[in-house]
Amino acid sequence: MNNKRITVFRKEHFNAAHRLNNPAWSVERNKAVFGLCNNDNFHGHNYELIVQVSGEIDPETGYLIDLKILSDLIKEEVLNRFDHKNLNLDTQEFKHLNPTAENIAVVIYDLIRAKLDERYTLKIRLYETERNFVEYPTEW
Amino acid sequence: MNNKRITVFRKEHFNAAHRLNNPAWSVERNKAVFGLCNNDNFHGHNYELIVQVSGEIDPETGYLIDLKILSDLIKEEVLNRFDHKNLNLDTQEFKHLNPTAENIAVVIYDLIRAKLDERYTLKIRLYETERNFVEYPTEW
Amino acid sequence: MNNKRITVFRKEHFNAAHRLNNPAWSVERNKAVFGLCNNDNFHGHNYELIVQVSGEIDPETGYLIDLKILSDLIKEEVLNRFDHKNLNLDTQEFKHLNPTAENIAVVIYDLIRAKLDERYTLKIRLYETERNFVEYPTEW
Amino acid sequence: MNNKRITVFRKEHFNAAHRLNNPAWSVERNKAVFGLCNNDNFHGHNYELIVQVSGEIDPETGYLIDLKILSDLIKEEVLNRFDHKNLNLDTQEFKHLNPTAENIAVVIYDLIRAKLDERYTLKIRLYETERNFVEYPTEW
Amino acid sequence: MNNKRITVFRKEHFNAAHRLNNPAWSVERNKAVFGLCNNDNFHGHNYELIVQVSGEIDPETGYLIDLKILSDLIKEEVLNRFDHKNLNLDTQEFKHLNPTAENIAVVIYDLIRAKLDERYTLKIRLYETERNFVEYPTEW
Amino acid sequence: MNNKRITVFRKEHFNAAHRLNNPAWSVERNKAVFGLCNNDNFHGHNYELIVQVSGEIDPETGYLIDLKILSDLIKEEVLNRFDHKNLNLDTQEFKHLNPTAENIAVVIYDLIRAKLDERYTLKIRLYETERNFVEYPTEW
Repeated sequence: MNNKRITVFRKEHFNAAHRLNNPAWSVERNKAVFGLCNNDNFHGHNYELIVQVSGEIDPETGYLIDLKILSDLIKEEVLNRFDHKNLNLDTQEFKHLNPTAENIAVVIYDLIRAKLDERYTLKIRLYETERNFVEYPTEW
Repeated sequence: MNNKRITVFRKEHFNAAHRLNNPAWSVERNKAVFGLCNNDNFHGHNYELIVQVSGEIDPETGYLIDLKILSDLIKEEVLNRFDHKNLNLDTQEFKHLNPTAENIAVVIYDLIRAKLDERYTLKIRLYETERNFVEYPTEW
Repeated sequence: MNNKRITVFRKEHFNAAHRLNNPAWSVERNKAVFGLCNNDNFHGHNYELIVQVSGEIDPETGYLIDLKILSDLIKEEVLNRFDHKNLNLDTQEFKHLNPTAENIAVVIYDLIRAKLDERYTLKIRLYETERNFVEYPTEW
Repeated sequence: MNNKRITVFRKEHFNAAHRLNNPAWSVERNKAVFGLCNNDNFHGHNYELIVQVSGEIDPETGYLIDLKILSDLIKEEVLNRFDHKNLNLDTQEFKHLNPTAENIAVVIYDLIRAKLDERYTLKIRLYETERNFVEYPTEW
Repeated sequence: MNNKRITVFRKEHFNAAHRLNNPAWSVERNKAVFGLCNNDNFHGHNYELIVQVSGEIDPETGYLIDLKILSDLIKEEVLNRFDHKNLNLDTQEFKHLNPTAENIAVVIYDLIRAKLDERYTLKIRLYETERNFVEYPTEW
Repeated sequence: MNNKRITVFRKEHFNAAHRLNNPAWSVERNKAVFGLCNNDNFHGHNYELIVQVSGEIDPETGYLIDLKILSDLIKEEVLNRFDHKNLNLDTQEFKHLNPTAENIAVVIYDLIRAKLDERYTLKIRLYETERNFVEYPTEW
């Protein structure tokens, strides 16, 4: 553990429709693997997103990062893209990628990582429901 | 307040896609009134449902109602109909009724009321998100 | 609705073991009605208790009731009796009364009602789990 | 219970400093009654506010009230006045009124009631902490 | 941090009675160390269990692991053993092991680890109450 | 991951007023950087604190650490200092240190670390609001 480093968390949320499906598979196999999540006409979730940034505290401000700036970045890169959208039909990112919680977390990581100063380390936690959630990347 | 009566609550949840739209209106008016919720390709929610039943305690069991029976009733009447569905496309109830939280709560009330013993009084609370929710009917 | 009245809520919790059983019934009937809750050696819960008091604001303090006094009353009358206890074996109240959530709520109401100034109205909400809870008494 | 009426809830929050004190009392009596809440230099809370509106569903929209409009009204009347403020020093409303949770709820009720269409009934729930909260007005 | 690895979380719960006691100690020492948790007739909890699995995403499904399979495994190995049971009297695992949250977490880890494909890494978080919880194993 | 080590968490809370300000800066720069958090007369929060301790289980007790002892330590070192206080005016620790969530977490870490047996590793999580929180130190 690095006693100089701190992590800051910012929680946001978005609502979206999605459907799990692998177009390379038969209808039967998709139903067998994805069950109700394969429903033709989509279903949806309230996604809770926790963006985690680590680094060293700026001694002038006492901040790791200004959470207003981080929150604005999340809005621009993630919420504007995915909130109140159909992930399969309305987004470039999931046109050819199955929108599982795992894949959504990786996509969000890549979107924020591209805009976040390289002195920060980044981790994404995404709740698809209160009982099913993912974290990416993981150190263990 | 009737000191002989008690209320029992059972919480369940379901995930669904929906879209708010009034077909009698123009595209512009629908966008103006329903905003992002009018998105053509739907969006979705994790709906938290609290079914509230009131009446008098059965002295033999100490129960108002067996929550296993109530939970099974909710599964049959509500979850099997709406969970992992597109409310607009996959259900009879919302083919011609706008699936707002208000209307979903009234529909759920009617579905359960029809199957619940008339000695019980019924109320529905439905969370569309943590910050937006409804209760039906209301005594005030 | 009485525009002069306000309700104040105080949340407390206690942990207890219990078993649901009707001694007038056969073993088979108890198993059939109470299922896993009839387990011979007990099971247990973290009970969340919300004590709700209504009345008129005292203009001198701006309080309905001093929550320190209400909290102390709950500790004396409820937590000291039931916290970290076996409701069936360690308490007078449930020696001959089935400790369902309904009956526990009524018992807690009676215990607090006996000590609460009569100018206040009282209501009890008790969570047995996050998904199963009761409120007593109820006005509908 | 009026089967035609529904309640809609909107949750918002604000952060504020405050101090409980009755200027008509001695220092000693204020310390005795208000304890730590009487601290000279203030303390503070994250206030969670739930605005509850009841009435009949508009058949054209399926809404009781457009939650965007309700949320904007709360921001203008409540959050802009109280968020990140010292209630005792920075607001007109609590210059001569003790900012207990009870009094804050009544003040918020009056602020929103003055701007809300009279066809709606209004109720306020205010959480000072997760364990201490109030609701105004109350029908019991 | 390994940028190829992701963690998936599945939350379940069970209710159980238990008692903390070391049979090698005197009654007095047990009371002194375990306090109310040493109550002869047991007390109980709603245990919230979060099973955390890490590894690499399967590119065919977009899943790390099918949560239906993980949930079934938790039910078979953990819930069927401990839900609505007295941990001290009704289970093999805690006949000779003190059922502290720490020991319960280690036992659950071992039960799931034995059935989980070795390509996955496993961690257990167990909430005994909202305010007391444990995680095992830990990397720091 | 060290399969012999476990983490135990204890959640506490305190309420405090604070103001973010860098006295070396102009009024304008403080307003620009800290925004509403720079309000002259302070604002406040309900801080949720999770103290995380890791180490090896004591085989005699089945505890990592007696949570009663840990809770008492947190009360003495943290709650008695900061609860119902103005962090800027009433405490030594923040007389010359900006009371951001980051700095408060570091101060709490140092206060508890000084009193905690060196065989334990320590981490602090501090929620300023439900959506903004920090953890210190961090291993990534």
